[in-house]
Amino acid sequence: MDRPILYDLNILNEFCIKVLTKAGVDSQDAEIISDTLMFAELRNVTSHGIVRLPTYIERMEKGLINQYADMKFTNNHFAAVTILDADNGMGQVAGYKAMKQAMNIAKLYGIGMVAVKNSNHFGVASYYSMMSLEENMIGLVMTNASPAIAPFGAKTPLLGTNPLTVAVPARNGKPIVLDMSMSTVARGKIRMYALQNKEMPPDWGLDTEGNPTADPNEALKGSLVPIGGVKGSGLSLIVDLLTGVLTGTSLTGEVRTVTDMSGPSRTSHVFIAINIESIMDPEVYKSNVDAVISRIKSMPPKGDNEIFMAGEIEQNLMDKRRAEGIPVEMEIVELLNSLAEKYDVSKL
Amino acid sequence: MDRPILYDLNILNEFCIKVLTKAGVDSQDAEIISDTLMFAELRNVTSHGIVRLPTYIERMEKGLINQYADMKFTNNHFAAVTILDADNGMGQVAGYKAMKQAMNIAKLYGIGMVAVKNSNHFGVASYYSMMSLEENMIGLVMTNASPAIAPFGAKTPLLGTNPLTVAVPARNGKPIVLDMSMSTVARGKIRMYALQNKEMPPDWGLDTEGNPTADPNEALKGSLVPIGGVKGSGLSLIVDLLTGVLTGTSLTGEVRTVTDMSGPSRTSHVFIAINIESIMDPEVYKSNVDAVISRIKSMPPKGDNEIFMAGEIEQNLMDKRRAEGIPVEMEIVELLNSLAEKYDVSKL
Repeated sequence: MDRPILYDLNILNEFCIKVLTKAGVDSQDAEIISDTLMFAELRNVTSHGIVRLPTYIERMEKGLINQYADMKFTNNHFAAVTILDADNGMGQVAGYKAMKQAMNIAKLYGIGMVAVKNSNHFGVASYYSMMSLEENMIGLVMTNASPAIAPFGAKTPLLGTNPLTVAVPARNGKPIVLDMSMSTVARGKIRMYALQNKEMPPDWGLDTEGNPTADPNEALKGSLVPIGGVKGSGLSLIVDLLTGVLTGTSLTGEVRTVTDMSGPSRTSHVFIAINIESIMDPEVYKSNVDAVISRIKSMPPKGDNEIFMAGEIEQNLMDKRRAEGIPVEMEIVELLNSLAEKYDVSKL
Repeated sequence: MDRPILYDLNILNEFCIKVLTKAGVDSQDAEIISDTLMFAELRNVTSHGIVRLPTYIERMEKGLINQYADMKFTNNHFAAVTILDADNGMGQVAGYKAMKQAMNIAKLYGIGMVAVKNSNHFGVASYYSMMSLEENMIGLVMTNASPAIAPFGAKTPLLGTNPLTVAVPARNGKPIVLDMSMSTVARGKIRMYALQNKEMPPDWGLDTEGNPTADPNEALKGSLVPIGGVKGSGLSLIVDLLTGVLTGTSLTGEVRTVTDMSGPSRTSHVFIAINIESIMDPEVYKSNVDAVISRIKSMPPKGDNEIFMAGEIEQNLMDKRRAEGIPVEMEIVELLNSLAEKYDVSKL
């Protein structure tokens, strides 16, 4: 395999914005979408980075994502909760608007919740939970996703990996950012083992009969193992009930994956912001979070490894990649360049 | 071992109320506490049932739980969030008051959050999340707990099992009630293996060096395996940051277990109620939850077993035990009867 090429963040960012605007996306929206893709690249969540751009554009071309979406908040008489109808637009735009609104509500009421209906894949969930950090808030975000996990006791997938993220600000330390799906490992990791024809640990995937398998190809036909068995499948169902079912967008099992071109994805998310000031002095809170971080990091480690907090490795990598550039695989560059040709944008 | 004795729910309930009031607990508070103990017994969460009564009473006698607690809500200018200072009183009383208040707030604002400081062990978490069901709300409750899980990369426990529960109402079906700790199995289960001198599965516990062990005694000296490794330990830390740290009650690692008589437990909880009406018609929502339940329960099962939803088995058992009685082990009856003698209450 060729070595990846290093790109400056700004080069990649401008490229994405240009392609998106040429595809009809409003320029402000394009900036938001591209920013989330850069966030993924900076944190090495490559599966949610620029590799997604061609798929998003294809969905727009096929009318499966509405790049001209008219997203509207629904008024109700409950001041701390609102609904955003994403009008089948880009999940990133919906996510950004929804989290902002949840924070606006939390500024006044202490907690704010925004449920998003009729949305699409929104990229890396922690992009949105971390928006709360600057405002001394705790951000909590969930999204539903296409079937990947079997309900406990069943053989075939119906539940999504349904990520949950929580971001908590620290004072001098790095924020604590949990961003996790409900499966033991991501499907992408199993796909890598399949490509390399390697056996995988037997507790990652299940075959079509719901039995553990070390064969990645069997697991890809079957389902992903939920964390803690009944607990992970239960958590995944709860995320469904708080997103797709609560907004009336889709029932469990009805979300389409981003590469399924048979119809809109019917994705739904929920955003909650908790204003720390409504409970205690945010500076005291953040100092206490610092104290927790140093208490944990100074514990005797298992082996010689440093103990890392949730989100710390990704945060370190962001700083590094901002300075040194983002590595992009040659085949992804080629994919993006054929998109550039189609939309008359300068190649990478 | 002797066979357990069957007791009528009312007999056990009255017994607990009498002992508690004799120990100085206000009669209304005693009813709440006893109701949570009966809830545990009905659902076969025996570890959180009447076996706890002697320990609670001992803590009161030693001044470690304040049975005369003056619990007060703190006023702030954030309408959807409030704090309850439990004044080191019983966790059950604090939990009941806090969830009620969260629901009162959610009635007006769509979502309500109550953080409880200076509290104690509150029993089965789903008792409180399920309070929301009658009001067409979704209840979400978390509590911190004493060290049992090692932070990811460390060898020794610092994080609690830190339960999370979410209760979601259905229309004709049973409510979906997730109630889970962040460890693969409860410490009580490992203790049972130790008592029986049995090897246990090696993915339940870790020895004092943080390595997997099948020896229950080594695991009891060491720590519990978190669900999904880094994910479960991350979730546990988030619960700490949303309870003990957010209320200023305790930092991570500072909660005392209920049997540790060296000081107050410094427990903290958070209660969130989401008013379904603020997002959609509750009757439509509950019908959709019914549809999700029947979709899952009609899937081809793994093996011949029926597929059960989270909380379903416990709900079935509650109906059965209400009708047929609650089995209590002879040694627990003896424990309770010596308490009865001390407090001049008729024996069981």
